[in-house]
Amino acid sequence: MPNYVVGHKIPDSDSICSAIALAYLKTTLGEPTVPARLGELSPETLFILDKFGFEQPELKTSYAGESLYIVDHSDRVQGPDDIDQATILGIIDHHKLGDLTTSTPLECWIRPVGCTNTIIKMMYDFHDVAIPKDIAGAMMCAILSDTVIFKSPTCTTADIKCVEALAEIAGIEDPQELGMDMFKVKSAVEGTPVRDLVLRDFKDFNMNGNLVGIGQLEVIDLAIFDEMKADLEADIIKLKQEGKRHTVILLLTDIMKEGSEFLVVSDDAAIIERAYDVTLTDNKVWIDGVLSRKKQVVPPLQDAFA
Amino acid sequence: MPNYVVGHKIPDSDSICSAIALAYLKTTLGEPTVPARLGELSPETLFILDKFGFEQPELKTSYAGESLYIVDHSDRVQGPDDIDQATILGIIDHHKLGDLTTSTPLECWIRPVGCTNTIIKMMYDFHDVAIPKDIAGAMMCAILSDTVIFKSPTCTTADIKCVEALAEIAGIEDPQELGMDMFKVKSAVEGTPVRDLVLRDFKDFNMNGNLVGIGQLEVIDLAIFDEMKADLEADIIKLKQEGKRHTVILLLTDIMKEGSEFLVVSDDAAIIERAYDVTLTDNKVWIDGVLSRKKQVVPPLQDAFA
Repeated sequence: MPNYVVGHKIPDSDSICSAIALAYLKTTLGEPTVPARLGELSPETLFILDKFGFEQPELKTSYAGESLYIVDHSDRVQGPDDIDQATILGIIDHHKLGDLTTSTPLECWIRPVGCTNTIIKMMYDFHDVAIPKDIAGAMMCAILSDTVIFKSPTCTTADIKCVEALAEIAGIEDPQELGMDMFKVKSAVEGTPVRDLVLRDFKDFNMNGNLVGIGQLEVIDLAIFDEMKADLEADIIKLKQEGKRHTVILLLTDIMKEGSEFLVVSDDAAIIERAYDVTLTDNKVWIDGVLSRKKQVVPPLQDAFA
Repeated sequence: MPNYVVGHKIPDSDSICSAIALAYLKTTLGEPTVPARLGELSPETLFILDKFGFEQPELKTSYAGESLYIVDHSDRVQGPDDIDQATILGIIDHHKLGDLTTSTPLECWIRPVGCTNTIIKMMYDFHDVAIPKDIAGAMMCAILSDTVIFKSPTCTTADIKCVEALAEIAGIEDPQELGMDMFKVKSAVEGTPVRDLVLRDFKDFNMNGNLVGIGQLEVIDLAIFDEMKADLEADIIKLKQEGKRHTVILLLTDIMKEGSEFLVVSDDAAIIERAYDVTLTDNKVWIDGVLSRKKQVVPPLQDAFA
């Protein structure tokens, strides 16, 4: 019976590419391991898999009785629902430490860097395993996505050096150009059902007992949302009710202007205003410089809820 | 203001030596960091510090407003009481993943190996920092202690190779001989107050909401306890009451016979019998082959409480 590697619900490119990369590494080290996913893939991730010739990882949501590695999260609500009946062999992540626990010793590689794949590269180096060309390309794209082509405040020197090394292995001359192609795919939101957009990159958090959902759409020009903003706002109200959430925030991130508009629906909007030191107008506010959910959006809110 | 490194309450040699080793590494990397401790040191740890010329790390129990690294645990009850008011920069550990959480990204090096210091050695290698001779000696002793001179089922190839490498740096020809000297110091229990013995290597665990304390005394010959066993049993009954614990277990481990006698006091002794598939006689049972609290004692009990 193989082990599995799985990222968070509503997988993003980092969750998928790190699952593929870690599964190859573990299998090479003599431990048969299969990449898996908890949900449907975004256009950006499909673009990456297509470019480097990968199939979609197996859709697998139940892990009772299985052994698995967790990538790109350590929060209980973001992982498989039956994780308590599985054995967690390890966690590779670059977020805050969440509430997963284990009853046996495990392997955790958690670093305050921009992308899980930067850490997976460290694991390949530690074990002195060569990264295949196609896997290097996918890993590189995940880092460019997570760091918003190095613009995000989460981006570290390690991420930039890692992209350089992976680009050389993959034979890609201009990683940033490929990054822009990827963000163009990500920006193509027209014609997509509103709910699909809201859930495209959406994560739930347990903040002091309150369920808080935070979605993010990163685009090259925020004007693309002008026609559909009212629909997005109406949909996050529904999403909040359906999931019995305390708060839903949708971040509309302009990667060129380098900031985000927050669309907010909350049982207590004052918490949000206090967390970011802003005043909401019609449940919205633009905050300059905010590109990163994990570094700029989650921590102040978590502290405000504490 | 420097950062701190601190291990668990009732520090053992691994907690202290890894704090010293990590503080030196971080300071060398440009991040002034000070080793600290949460309690009094055992004779074994004092023997190691004396042998390699170290002062005792600063006794510091409050960390509100400070930034710190946590070594050798990730369980809330084992760390500083005001950890929620501190910033956890990282965790280096070799146990199960406990219930510490953070609101910001951090650095975690957690591996299923025999000793935290084996992981710290990986960190030195990763950063290409030379380990000073005295620090190498202390790290080596901590690994010999935690792995019971390689006899514990927690001991891995990585631990053995690490001891070999550290012995060479420290200029120690026969690490195992030094290990036996250390265990002789550890075995000198006569004349020590009973409560000091019970608490010498004692850890609390939160098992499904129940406070469970597990102490361990590792000696070369269990006969040394013949005269004092009744006193030890009386004292763990008191310790259970004082701390409102559900269960207290004291492991009397014979490192030559390679097994442990369990002294048990519990609100529900059947849980203990079920966890280890044994029958207690007068609240005691010898279990052959049990040397490791973290690998052989905690996981079955945690599962039995789940």
